[in-house]
Amino acid sequence: MSEETGPAVQDFYPEHLAWCYGCGRLNESGYQFKTRWDGDETVTRFTPAPYHTAVPGTVYGGLLASLIDCHSTASGAAGLYRAEGREFSDPGRAHRCVTGTLTVRYRRPTALGPELEVRGRIIAVDRRKVTVASRIVVGGEVTVEADAVVIEVPEDFGAGR
Amino acid sequence: MSEETGPAVQDFYPEHLAWCYGCGRLNESGYQFKTRWDGDETVTRFTPAPYHTAVPGTVYGGLLASLIDCHSTASGAAGLYRAEGREFSDPGRAHRCVTGTLTVRYRRPTALGPELEVRGRIIAVDRRKVTVASRIVVGGEVTVEADAVVIEVPEDFGAGR
Repeated sequence: MSEETGPAVQDFYPEHLAWCYGCGRLNESGYQFKTRWDGDETVTRFTPAPYHTAVPGTVYGGLLASLIDCHSTASGAAGLYRAEGREFSDPGRAHRCVTGTLTVRYRRPTALGPELEVRGRIIAVDRRKVTVASRIVVGGEVTVEADAVVIEVPEDFGAGR
Repeated sequence: MSEETGPAVQDFYPEHLAWCYGCGRLNESGYQFKTRWDGDETVTRFTPAPYHTAVPGTVYGGLLASLIDCHSTASGAAGLYRAEGREFSDPGRAHRCVTGTLTVRYRRPTALGPELEVRGRIIAVDRRKVTVASRIVVGGEVTVEADAVVIEVPEDFGAGR
């Protein structure tokens, strides 16, 4: 069982960077993934729709990659806050990362139906670059393992578009 | 300019394996990606919707990963047909692959608006395992590079679900 509580990192993305189809709180057509700390791990939860299918009975790999993608950028931002000893809601710069490289290893089929749990660990923070290792768990079983290198965007990135 | 013509490999997936959210011809809620030969390369084309956004003005990385995912499994199937000297429509086994490992390198932002072109090459066919290298091109510029290892599923995989 998870004890994660508190705000999601996506709730603090700057407004002009909060339109992501996966995790932007302002994108009403999107998934609105939310990522929170649970101790030293980051957690994102999502329940797929019945049509998010690969082979019948299993979750579409592209959706799993999408989950990992947004979970990783969010974990990267969370890692940057923590490296500064800050909470998401503390005054100062709001962190926002984009993905550099994403590697997804589909270990076994992911059952379609139950809530998916993505759990991540911050492997390294190197200035603007954060390395995140994640796994997708469903029904207590790890079905997907992933690594991502994410990069913090400059503070004015995407502003004025 | 592309000269690709002819049928898409997804049009020949067995019916019980044609429900993928990305590329299943029977999934009316999905993207219905189609992949064809163009000489020695495989090609998949897709025009994102305005809400498929990452940072405003750019395409959502999860959608790009989804495109690569289905393009790679389709390319793997196409590669298996070609290794046998067969057209998709020839009598005999219909090939269908799933993804083992997917690596996506986001080289630069992908502009949201124009049609995306995914182009792939078959790097190796080793029995049921096919390695595919792909790139996403928009407006003549490569924005994403990717590698995938895909695996042919057994002929009765997913049947009866």
